[in-house]
Amino acid sequence: VPEPGVLADHQTRIYVEGAAGRLPALPLDHDELERRAEARLDRGAFGYVAGGAGAEDTMRANRDAFRRWRIVPRMLRDVSHRDLRTEVCGTAMPAPVLLAPVGVQSIVHPEAELAVARGAAAVGVPMVLSSASSRSMEEVAAALDGCPRWFQLYWPGDPELTASLLARAERAGYGAVVVTLDVWMLGWRPRDLQLAYLPFLRGEGMANYLSDPVFRAALDAPPEEDMAGAVRHFLRVFSDPSTTWDRLARLRQSTRLPILLKGILHPDDARRAADHGVDGIIVSNHGGRQVDGAVAALDALPAVVDAVPQSLPVLFDSGIRTAADAFTALALGARAVLLGRPYVWALAVGGEAGVAELLRNLLAELDLTVALTGHTRLEEIGREALTRAG
Amino acid sequence: VPEPGVLADHQTRIYVEGAAGRLPALPLDHDELERRAEARLDRGAFGYVAGGAGAEDTMRANRDAFRRWRIVPRMLRDVSHRDLRTEVCGTAMPAPVLLAPVGVQSIVHPEAELAVARGAAAVGVPMVLSSASSRSMEEVAAALDGCPRWFQLYWPGDPELTASLLARAERAGYGAVVVTLDVWMLGWRPRDLQLAYLPFLRGEGMANYLSDPVFRAALDAPPEEDMAGAVRHFLRVFSDPSTTWDRLARLRQSTRLPILLKGILHPDDARRAADHGVDGIIVSNHGGRQVDGAVAALDALPAVVDAVPQSLPVLFDSGIRTAADAFTALALGARAVLLGRPYVWALAVGGEAGVAELLRNLLAELDLTVALTGHTRLEEIGREALTRAG
Amino acid sequence: VPEPGVLADHQTRIYVEGAAGRLPALPLDHDELERRAEARLDRGAFGYVAGGAGAEDTMRANRDAFRRWRIVPRMLRDVSHRDLRTEVCGTAMPAPVLLAPVGVQSIVHPEAELAVARGAAAVGVPMVLSSASSRSMEEVAAALDGCPRWFQLYWPGDPELTASLLARAERAGYGAVVVTLDVWMLGWRPRDLQLAYLPFLRGEGMANYLSDPVFRAALDAPPEEDMAGAVRHFLRVFSDPSTTWDRLARLRQSTRLPILLKGILHPDDARRAADHGVDGIIVSNHGGRQVDGAVAALDALPAVVDAVPQSLPVLFDSGIRTAADAFTALALGARAVLLGRPYVWALAVGGEAGVAELLRNLLAELDLTVALTGHTRLEEIGREALTRAG
Amino acid sequence: VPEPGVLADHQTRIYVEGAAGRLPALPLDHDELERRAEARLDRGAFGYVAGGAGAEDTMRANRDAFRRWRIVPRMLRDVSHRDLRTEVCGTAMPAPVLLAPVGVQSIVHPEAELAVARGAAAVGVPMVLSSASSRSMEEVAAALDGCPRWFQLYWPGDPELTASLLARAERAGYGAVVVTLDVWMLGWRPRDLQLAYLPFLRGEGMANYLSDPVFRAALDAPPEEDMAGAVRHFLRVFSDPSTTWDRLARLRQSTRLPILLKGILHPDDARRAADHGVDGIIVSNHGGRQVDGAVAALDALPAVVDAVPQSLPVLFDSGIRTAADAFTALALGARAVLLGRPYVWALAVGGEAGVAELLRNLLAELDLTVALTGHTRLEEIGREALTRAG
Repeated sequence: VPEPGVLADHQTRIYVEGAAGRLPALPLDHDELERRAEARLDRGAFGYVAGGAGAEDTMRANRDAFRRWRIVPRMLRDVSHRDLRTEVCGTAMPAPVLLAPVGVQSIVHPEAELAVARGAAAVGVPMVLSSASSRSMEEVAAALDGCPRWFQLYWPGDPELTASLLARAERAGYGAVVVTLDVWMLGWRPRDLQLAYLPFLRGEGMANYLSDPVFRAALDAPPEEDMAGAVRHFLRVFSDPSTTWDRLARLRQSTRLPILLKGILHPDDARRAADHGVDGIIVSNHGGRQVDGAVAALDALPAVVDAVPQSLPVLFDSGIRTAADAFTALALGARAVLLGRPYVWALAVGGEAGVAELLRNLLAELDLTVALTGHTRLEEIGREALTRAG
Repeated sequence: VPEPGVLADHQTRIYVEGAAGRLPALPLDHDELERRAEARLDRGAFGYVAGGAGAEDTMRANRDAFRRWRIVPRMLRDVSHRDLRTEVCGTAMPAPVLLAPVGVQSIVHPEAELAVARGAAAVGVPMVLSSASSRSMEEVAAALDGCPRWFQLYWPGDPELTASLLARAERAGYGAVVVTLDVWMLGWRPRDLQLAYLPFLRGEGMANYLSDPVFRAALDAPPEEDMAGAVRHFLRVFSDPSTTWDRLARLRQSTRLPILLKGILHPDDARRAADHGVDGIIVSNHGGRQVDGAVAALDALPAVVDAVPQSLPVLFDSGIRTAADAFTALALGARAVLLGRPYVWALAVGGEAGVAELLRNLLAELDLTVALTGHTRLEEIGREALTRAG
Repeated sequence: VPEPGVLADHQTRIYVEGAAGRLPALPLDHDELERRAEARLDRGAFGYVAGGAGAEDTMRANRDAFRRWRIVPRMLRDVSHRDLRTEVCGTAMPAPVLLAPVGVQSIVHPEAELAVARGAAAVGVPMVLSSASSRSMEEVAAALDGCPRWFQLYWPGDPELTASLLARAERAGYGAVVVTLDVWMLGWRPRDLQLAYLPFLRGEGMANYLSDPVFRAALDAPPEEDMAGAVRHFLRVFSDPSTTWDRLARLRQSTRLPILLKGILHPDDARRAADHGVDGIIVSNHGGRQVDGAVAALDALPAVVDAVPQSLPVLFDSGIRTAADAFTALALGARAVLLGRPYVWALAVGGEAGVAELLRNLLAELDLTVALTGHTRLEEIGREALTRAG
Repeated sequence: VPEPGVLADHQTRIYVEGAAGRLPALPLDHDELERRAEARLDRGAFGYVAGGAGAEDTMRANRDAFRRWRIVPRMLRDVSHRDLRTEVCGTAMPAPVLLAPVGVQSIVHPEAELAVARGAAAVGVPMVLSSASSRSMEEVAAALDGCPRWFQLYWPGDPELTASLLARAERAGYGAVVVTLDVWMLGWRPRDLQLAYLPFLRGEGMANYLSDPVFRAALDAPPEEDMAGAVRHFLRVFSDPSTTWDRLARLRQSTRLPILLKGILHPDDARRAADHGVDGIIVSNHGGRQVDGAVAALDALPAVVDAVPQSLPVLFDSGIRTAADAFTALALGARAVLLGRPYVWALAVGGEAGVAELLRNLLAELDLTVALTGHTRLEEIGREALTRAG
């Protein structure tokens, strides 16, 4: 049934293959997907991904914030051809969706970030690789093949280590640097603390560091001989809580990649970021994993968008589960959204194929949401497409 | 106990027959009715009817919206004689309630739309037949006998097919055309996708098409020989997402029936509909089945009512479960309401008799609500009868 | 431990008797009390009392409304001596609490209204006897002994029957007439309809009618011989939905008792009641039993209070469960509150003693609430004692 | 792993000790901690601590109030060195957290307040000892060693007894007096009443009284011989509901310790307290244990802070469970917060070590919250750090 019609191609494929006995491998409902992942993972790994800071109020608030907005669909517009492609900071993507940086994916799947990379590449969705990945940025780049990629940086105090990581990212074809601002110190995460679960302490999630010449040069012994020492060094150099705005200039000079700041929630910080010449902002509260009680990321988005020049792309992270969520964030001014936990659950449940299936589903649903609300291009989607609930 | 008194006739009948051992066959509570239907139906069929788009947030929002309004009853008015009869677009009805178009009812009951038609006819409630019914509009018209009926149109791109369907509807005594605007493409429905459940793919719900000369003429082989080919053609011609307002003029010319547009949610679209000379508007989000995240239909109603001339009837669909819901929509300006899932559950649980019983209950409750709030005629029910909750 | 101190007398009694092995017989928590009653009663009787109209949204709204108000306690006022006594329409009472009229209590307890009367008399709380009681007003008056009582009237269309009932109430020492305005027709009550449960159809709840000379004179045969005929007549004469404001003058003339109108929710109706010279108003939605979707009674209270002269007492009914509820209604302007379902559950669980225990608990808690919020007399409790929640 | 880095010291300790098989003994989640305590305690003792007044609406409201505020973290500020130390009414403390006065802890743990004192001393957190403690203030002072302490006073009507208690508190090194204003009479507590559970009636929680010369002198017989008589006297002298503002002058003269009034909820009472020269105010509704229906303590905080001179410290009590709660109260103007039920659960589950562990966890989380929201000192935390939720 290849012709265009009332069923989009991806839907057609699902219904037709299902009729032939090949039902979707992945739960389409996020909560069910999470439950399925929970059944697969050990308690520590599940809690590490699922959990948030403190009493997890902010994690819940991230989700609740979406329910305060509603889309008002428009009728009888020609929506036969949609184009959701966009370009952010020089990176082209098939839809305004990227995979959010998530560290240490080896706890979820043996292929870890490589499986995610292959799944992303199958759909062409850009991957933002975490500094704290289980596989090195070079390995992941190879798995991504031509698929666009960004590198997320936990910004070390040591400028040499920073420069080394960024130089490698450039060489490996990463198209932008996402600098995380909200993890100078690890948040208080009761699920992990209760089980004393922190994979980094056994050397997991340090691939980019263990493979870095500057990092290795500072060790007393190579990690192969003294992993404990390497871990200690990692915890020490990972970040520098004394970092302030004035250090951005040096970071700027240490790479020619576009720089996006991730973790901005206050419009004044957004303005300051713009003044410092960054190339993009990512509104995020780290999925509720750092500060319990923090504002829902979506609630912070509009003021941040309003605070910066329209030319500065503002992206959104923290709470995206469905196409409706993505549409809402886009309508509130986000240029693209980052998807986090859902793809990790897909990785746990279905590996590389699971990640690809999840992305195909999300993009198909987003395409339908755009079309059925009367739009064909992202530029048309603005705040007038929304109304407050109730 | 036939005399008028503190018990309305229908209540009297229930209490007296119950005392004689004939308890109501149908659950009076909607949620219990749905559970009972779920127990009767196979998982795919139940999910198809019960489910909504995406995470079903809009489906829930449709219900929540009613709880934000409250009726303020008035006392000591003579309410001994109520008259809930009304006329919409030339169709007279015993109360401002119609059966919403629901496709492919063969998945719910072997008699499908015929059982519904007979149940509706027993009470005189107009039925809006779906284009995608399991029985042809001619068969259903026969079952409806003299009961008023409207024909819902999934508007094909092909003007010939459109004209053929409308001509048949006219001939079969349908009194108006309800043009659905929100299904150029099928919404993303996880419950169906998960089970790859889409009855149309096996030829169900195509009765009006398979019996249509224009549709049949375009097939390479008659459906009796090549149903797969017929299904493919159906999916292709079902709708045309490039349809825009300017095509309304042609539609207007292809039938002398009143035309109502179903799926309007934005006041600007309502204004535009009025400018294009349609005969009625149905505020609806398709029961939350098309766009997850869309505004609750009830929240969209007041602005649509305000946007069009008072002479243009605005009807309401999406979320009606009880008489209180119907009263609320009427008070907010709806001329009539469309009832959807409840009658499908009644069909599943009780067939023709179940549909009739559900309608008798709803009309009796609505009559009491009108009376006990101090009204006797629909014209008296306006926004001043309501207050915001809390 | 008889001296006044940090423990009020009633608390002391509970703690000391409990220490001696006599724990409170009645659950102190309302929900637990209801569950206990449910376990004791047959399904029909429980549903009749517990249920409301339609989907029971208004019944829930009645409770939710209280949570939108919060008391702001004041400190360091001399609260050593409280006096909660009050007088409403010439009736003195130990606290601003009355027992709401509840019909046909024989379904709950064999002693029915007699047990309630004795329980009320033990504490001195006035009882408002329902027209539709299972025991005649004369029997109940005897059981009440000197305890104050009011008579609730379902206002018949027949002036003779009305006059007869009121004359008997006067003779039996009832101090006021509470005229119910919201039951010209019985509400749509799914729990009862589902079970076809209506005790009146078997002659229960008709004691005042079966013992009335005017009622009996209109029967073809005495009820002892033809109960079915008596029931039919009862349903016919019970109320007259054509009753309007102008009939109040005649009612006024037919009794010298104070007249209170029960069921007022709109300030315009309150004004009209005042203009017609009634002696009191009871804001009520019949506990959510008549119109599903109706405004929460508490939400209607302030505007009604504001609409009438301060000299006209406004009472409150529908939703009172706890002392905090009573205090809130008083602070919003109610002169007294009527307690409904809780005492029926107490009757079911503990009979006469249960009713007395419930009332002692409620009055003791109310006394503490008044004291601990810095008040000693009802006149001091006004809206400034409250704040909106959140 | 002793060096400063991305893991705070306390987190490092938990993760490293856990990796060595010594997992945290105490649940980090409050609700789980409460459940664990419930499993350990007898029903009466658990209910006494967990329960609140009436239907416990205010207890719930205390918690809900926190969810209406959200913190807006700021980025790229140097947060490498935080200092949460503060001084309130002359008492220095490592963080703006005190242990709230909780009476009769012998029902929870055999070591009662002594275990709490030792746990508090291990962390240096000030303890506010209840008048109604199970161990005398002198014993507790000894257990506290050098750890700062305040004495909570249930203010007797008898000036001699008051003076005696305060003189002992001064001698035992208590640094301030917290005068409770909201328990002239014990609140209506259904959980306790249902079980007739009141440990004071068997002489528990009277250590400070039984050891007091003035109290003893008034007894007919020493408590060792006639405990019932002592209990009766205790209930009589415990408080005086006729106490008004003018008695504050005498109290002021009877001690040279700073005086804080606990239980203020209305800004006018706060103003009056300031006018009377008190040294501090504690906004509190006694954890929802006195007046069901009372305003959530957090909702009362801002207006109280605004009502008094900035020089007058306002503390906060009632509802604090997490670091986010503490931060929110501080940002709304509280100079410090009092922690109640959580430490009692820690006492029940882990004794002295449990209390210390709970406090270490809370202080570590608070330190992270301060740092990760861009602050280093308490003075920097103001209302601009918050936004309303939604």
